[in-house]
Amino acid sequence: MHAVGVDIGGTKIAGALVADDGSIVVDDRRPTPAGDPHEIVEIVVEMVRSLSAGRDVVAAGVAAAGFIDSQQSTVYYAPNINWRNEPFRDRLRERLGMDVTIDNDANAAGWAEFRFGAARDVRDMTMLTIGTGVGGAIVTGDRLLRGGFGTAGELGHLRVVPDGLPCGCGARGCIEQYGSGRALLRMANEIADAGGIGLALADAREQHGRLDGGILAELISGHDPGALHALAQLGRWLGQACASLSAVLDPAMFVFGGGVSVAGDLLLDPVREAYLAHLPARGYHPEPVFVTAQLVNDAGVVGAADLARIHAANLDG
Amino acid sequence: MHAVGVDIGGTKIAGALVADDGSIVVDDRRPTPAGDPHEIVEIVVEMVRSLSAGRDVVAAGVAAAGFIDSQQSTVYYAPNINWRNEPFRDRLRERLGMDVTIDNDANAAGWAEFRFGAARDVRDMTMLTIGTGVGGAIVTGDRLLRGGFGTAGELGHLRVVPDGLPCGCGARGCIEQYGSGRALLRMANEIADAGGIGLALADAREQHGRLDGGILAELISGHDPGALHALAQLGRWLGQACASLSAVLDPAMFVFGGGVSVAGDLLLDPVREAYLAHLPARGYHPEPVFVTAQLVNDAGVVGAADLARIHAANLDG
Repeated sequence: MHAVGVDIGGTKIAGALVADDGSIVVDDRRPTPAGDPHEIVEIVVEMVRSLSAGRDVVAAGVAAAGFIDSQQSTVYYAPNINWRNEPFRDRLRERLGMDVTIDNDANAAGWAEFRFGAARDVRDMTMLTIGTGVGGAIVTGDRLLRGGFGTAGELGHLRVVPDGLPCGCGARGCIEQYGSGRALLRMANEIADAGGIGLALADAREQHGRLDGGILAELISGHDPGALHALAQLGRWLGQACASLSAVLDPAMFVFGGGVSVAGDLLLDPVREAYLAHLPARGYHPEPVFVTAQLVNDAGVVGAADLARIHAANLDG
Repeated sequence: MHAVGVDIGGTKIAGALVADDGSIVVDDRRPTPAGDPHEIVEIVVEMVRSLSAGRDVVAAGVAAAGFIDSQQSTVYYAPNINWRNEPFRDRLRERLGMDVTIDNDANAAGWAEFRFGAARDVRDMTMLTIGTGVGGAIVTGDRLLRGGFGTAGELGHLRVVPDGLPCGCGARGCIEQYGSGRALLRMANEIADAGGIGLALADAREQHGRLDGGILAELISGHDPGALHALAQLGRWLGQACASLSAVLDPAMFVFGGGVSVAGDLLLDPVREAYLAHLPARGYHPEPVFVTAQLVNDAGVVGAADLARIHAANLDG
């Protein structure tokens, strides 16, 4: 049975009709309108209708950054689209006449990796999405860990430094400030400022006015020592965070997704090294593997569709 | 249906025949023999036989400190009783002729609180056991979180300070070094050394030769300022750790067990205050409650028996 998945991002809304093996039948993409939640509802309704026209579609799943309640129905807070306490599911259900679920975007992406991607052969995985920020998703015993209020898996806000760098969440020392794409840029700028191995970074910064993710990605793929140094620094923080996450969650696999994860082993090698150096009771229990995500661009829509299909099947069953 | 629960501690082995409402029908207690795992097997066999004699008993559950595999069958490592890779379940099963499961002792105690104690009305709870060390148990969506290799919920080894105090696990900065009974004694000694509000602590130390848990408990219940200061320091560390745990697990309830938790709100008030001060995205999602455990002495045997009963029922079903 087909389901529609929609991923509401800060700049674009992606949608797809997804088969039950996770493959995308047809997709769509529109710019995210600023501000008005009603306008977003209209676009999502239109997108689901056009993607499901003439097909047998059981449900629609919508993913968005933010806090979603554990009934997958209300958006407590979605920073990108400035929503507070929106009863999003009911609005969509009324308009669409099919079962609708909403989920956190990192949870949807993690679920897709668990079902159809890098983690399809394990039952317990922890995913870290290294984009501008750090997102997370946890699957344990074949189930998505949602938590008591639906906000579990906010792994970017694990604290790694007491009284550390201030975080956008209002707390301090969150791994998001030491392990995100934004942190990588800060580290690269610091290395550029210091000269030495940072010379190529300093040159690129002067040439382009500032460093950005694209410039860094290019320097990393060219194995520039300064850029690799920044990436290794990032990886060591993430590996230390994973050591704590293992004590709590004991996943069989850590999956790294998001833009920074395309660096592959250049990121994962320092992650693994720092992980082992900081792992509690190392040698006294089995150790997880570290891999990169496989469904990079489509994970959000594929996961949202699959979660919606499962929800609808449970309603029927 | 009745089940037998056994809790192997460092100094004693406790056993009980447990009804399916969690009540104890009859119990037993023996000293833990040092060293030889075979001798422990003999004692457990004898205890289960005597507790189940003449009764209809479906299963036996055994709890011990250490790492147990996710099939609840092998002890990877049990520090108190010096075991490595013991196929404990099969040995017991052969001898007893009934279904046997083994579990980590903190997991068993947490499960008992979830089923019959403080957390019986929630579906998602995180328990911290504050004894000599810090143990943990996680229930999410009505299930015990075991992890990919069975070692999830080792919450004492969440790192709270990078390059912090060395921990018995080989890592540094674990919450066990800042939030355990042993840490409380260290803090109390530091306060005694400093004089001032520590005078009563210094006097008690001189009188008894050294401070211990019993002396501290007495000073705390008498509201001695120095002892309360140490307890508040401990509570603040624990509250900060809970803020990180909320980002990961989002429990509806934190349950505090173990010897130190008998201090009640004298411990929980500083925990709550530090939790709120360090909670990521405070005010944008619902908050958990903090309570103390209800089944203090019996939690291990009751939880082990209930987990064994559930395991046996699933084998039948």
